[in-house]
Amino acid sequence: MKVGVYPGSFDPITLGHIDIIKRSSKLFDKLIVAVLINSAKTPLFSVEERVNMLKEETLFLENVEIDVFSGLLVDYMEKQKATAIVRGLRAVSDFEYEIQLAQTNHSLNSNVDTVFLTTNVQYAFLSSSVVREVASFGGELDHFVTSNVESKLREKFKQED
Amino acid sequence: MKVGVYPGSFDPITLGHIDIIKRSSKLFDKLIVAVLINSAKTPLFSVEERVNMLKEETLFLENVEIDVFSGLLVDYMEKQKATAIVRGLRAVSDFEYEIQLAQTNHSLNSNVDTVFLTTNVQYAFLSSSVVREVASFGGELDHFVTSNVESKLREKFKQED
Amino acid sequence: MKVGVYPGSFDPITLGHIDIIKRSSKLFDKLIVAVLINSAKTPLFSVEERVNMLKEETLFLENVEIDVFSGLLVDYMEKQKATAIVRGLRAVSDFEYEIQLAQTNHSLNSNVDTVFLTTNVQYAFLSSSVVREVASFGGELDHFVTSNVESKLREKFKQED
Amino acid sequence: MKVGVYPGSFDPITLGHIDIIKRSSKLFDKLIVAVLINSAKTPLFSVEERVNMLKEETLFLENVEIDVFSGLLVDYMEKQKATAIVRGLRAVSDFEYEIQLAQTNHSLNSNVDTVFLTTNVQYAFLSSSVVREVASFGGELDHFVTSNVESKLREKFKQED
Amino acid sequence: MKVGVYPGSFDPITLGHIDIIKRSSKLFDKLIVAVLINSAKTPLFSVEERVNMLKEETLFLENVEIDVFSGLLVDYMEKQKATAIVRGLRAVSDFEYEIQLAQTNHSLNSNVDTVFLTTNVQYAFLSSSVVREVASFGGELDHFVTSNVESKLREKFKQED
Amino acid sequence: MKVGVYPGSFDPITLGHIDIIKRSSKLFDKLIVAVLINSAKTPLFSVEERVNMLKEETLFLENVEIDVFSGLLVDYMEKQKATAIVRGLRAVSDFEYEIQLAQTNHSLNSNVDTVFLTTNVQYAFLSSSVVREVASFGGELDHFVTSNVESKLREKFKQED
Repeated sequence: MKVGVYPGSFDPITLGHIDIIKRSSKLFDKLIVAVLINSAKTPLFSVEERVNMLKEETLFLENVEIDVFSGLLVDYMEKQKATAIVRGLRAVSDFEYEIQLAQTNHSLNSNVDTVFLTTNVQYAFLSSSVVREVASFGGELDHFVTSNVESKLREKFKQED
Repeated sequence: MKVGVYPGSFDPITLGHIDIIKRSSKLFDKLIVAVLINSAKTPLFSVEERVNMLKEETLFLENVEIDVFSGLLVDYMEKQKATAIVRGLRAVSDFEYEIQLAQTNHSLNSNVDTVFLTTNVQYAFLSSSVVREVASFGGELDHFVTSNVESKLREKFKQED
Repeated sequence: MKVGVYPGSFDPITLGHIDIIKRSSKLFDKLIVAVLINSAKTPLFSVEERVNMLKEETLFLENVEIDVFSGLLVDYMEKQKATAIVRGLRAVSDFEYEIQLAQTNHSLNSNVDTVFLTTNVQYAFLSSSVVREVASFGGELDHFVTSNVESKLREKFKQED
Repeated sequence: MKVGVYPGSFDPITLGHIDIIKRSSKLFDKLIVAVLINSAKTPLFSVEERVNMLKEETLFLENVEIDVFSGLLVDYMEKQKATAIVRGLRAVSDFEYEIQLAQTNHSLNSNVDTVFLTTNVQYAFLSSSVVREVASFGGELDHFVTSNVESKLREKFKQED
Repeated sequence: MKVGVYPGSFDPITLGHIDIIKRSSKLFDKLIVAVLINSAKTPLFSVEERVNMLKEETLFLENVEIDVFSGLLVDYMEKQKATAIVRGLRAVSDFEYEIQLAQTNHSLNSNVDTVFLTTNVQYAFLSSSVVREVASFGGELDHFVTSNVESKLREKFKQED
Repeated sequence: MKVGVYPGSFDPITLGHIDIIKRSSKLFDKLIVAVLINSAKTPLFSVEERVNMLKEETLFLENVEIDVFSGLLVDYMEKQKATAIVRGLRAVSDFEYEIQLAQTNHSLNSNVDTVFLTTNVQYAFLSSSVVREVASFGGELDHFVTSNVESKLREKFKQED
């Protein structure tokens, strides 16, 4: 069984992430969307909230599982018997960073390969940080996230007032 | 009347900014240079100091106004009945970020467009952060800012000693 | 009166070009779309055919004129009393070439400035050469050109069989 | 059964191509390496020679087939019931061109997706055109191609003398 | 006597740094590897530890000296009667930043020039920050640093537990 | 004695080339400017004309020699006992191509290294092909080449009329 892992922060999940999840789920028998627990950053949504949003948005995809991980990605891959890391490519600066990650992971474990998909054009300039910033000023979010995620962003910024 | 807005931090205004202001002021009936109030960053110069430096450096340009804004740029544009955002492009990494901003702003308000000018070659590698760093070590500043701004930078770093 | 010039080969005009023409026509009192006569290249459509397609696609825009030019663009700009060159930016490799052109034109005539618009995301990867190649193999064209231009492409490749 | 297609000119096949073929063959049930017949270019090796070299170099990979195609890649994909195009990414300029191709192919047929692998670092700057140029001057080729391909390159340039 | 300076943080020195030091030491009569004292950052290794590691790894290179500096690099260059700054180039994003630094330094002192070497391909995606991150999770380090530096990294992260 | 080689087409020599020659001549005991004889291209100026222009423009630099070469650059380097190739870097697209060349040359002969200088900002967007195009239309050339080269370009395009 071929297992792929799509790692990320997903703070929060955007329409761009959903596009990559849908398309890459067709490439593997099982796709694990793995939320990175990064103690160095203060996220907007807790790990639990992010996992729940991911589960709600991927309910209709049978071979997709949501999980969390910390530490080296290659160690997590080995534990999951997964061989391919999935990443979405948006822009040139992404590409540089992603290629560095891919080469580092391949150096650490040569059984692990990284597979890139290009983000659909309409999401080519979308990122979670843009979404958080627009939400913080009460801007329109419907081109960026699902209505479910939008309402969670609205609540989050209401709490902060 | 066509109104353009040139947004930025201007901490402090450089010769590169002045070049963009001069050239873009010819493209519009009115050009508003809008200082972003960003509570997340600690600037070297206060908003008032930055507004004053901008006013001093653009006195000779009749259709240029200096203003401040916070929140979403597209909301500010609407309030000002402005339709074009002006941005200077320096390098490839600029380009990536700027195109993301431009697409996001166009998503948020399709009446708002972004117009890019390429920075004059002699300022192609100049930024406010470089200016602040060179000033902090007492380096030469005359290729980077006007003598007026230079003396304000000298004072600022004297105060800090 | 502010006059802008949008130069190009337009072989043929794509939906991306039409997007740039519409948006930049709002920035000037008059916008001239200027077809470059380049004796070094063999175009698919003759200059006359390209001018006619441009006229048909811009009929609804009152301040847009279609013209042809050869020689140095800055000389043509001077003859037309135009001060701004309009260019659409798609990708990083575009950006490099465009910035070189803009700086060269500014060196040749410092009154001439280049104004860049970013191509709308859905046309961000579209070019006339892609359109010609897809048309040559009978592929779908409706995401790329208008139905008018599509039928002219179909005829062109019928003639060549 | 999941079928991937790795299209290219392979004029000639390099160690970089072999690396991508090996790694991507693990991602699919069947991988078709498809040589593009491009009437606009004069290749060094004929289509038959290129197909034979590909067969010789991939004998040990059971799920890899060698084929040729002309016309639109998406039409070929449909005929082969293949859903993923495989491409190797080397550098930023590759990335731009590849993303344009991927988006165009997805526009032409939304069932077709492109999967990118990053070329192994030691082949990151290798291309068939570099190989041909070095071979034409009698330079060392053992870092670039297999000894089998090297001897075919030597013969080819002997014939031309 | 021609003197070159290779400035950096070297936190810690990687195999990529050693490659640049070896190759650039051949270009000058004396090469000074200069550790930047940057009060704004909290390094993993102290300046003393970094200087010692650099000394241990360059013992075999007779014309290489290790030093520290703070303030403007061009002032340090002048004090050392050095005329060339040495920098290793890895990727496009490096290139942008490095070119900005080189132009700024040349603006500040036109006698100072920057000489770039491209990092050997096998270290093209390696950086001190990647090394620190992999070490913090106990990952393999032998592709990235010498065994001497590896053992110092292991100690460092033991201390932190 | 340290010998550097600055290879290129120099068709014709620009102010940007002269800037690189001046600066790199300080880095070596001898600098050879080597004109590539490329039978695949039809140059504007003959090899003899290009060598003569290079000699005229570098008369004042005592350690600079002008030569021609064909075949592999690394073979020429060996014949000249030269160890460093000098190249000027302008833009990102240059960088990609140059890094590929540098890595290829290092693969072919590990004693040969490539040293990059960044082109002075005022020549950052200048190339021989831009010069030829502007000259062909009778445009201003004084920002691009010396008056000596300018008069040779004027003659050349007079001859062609």
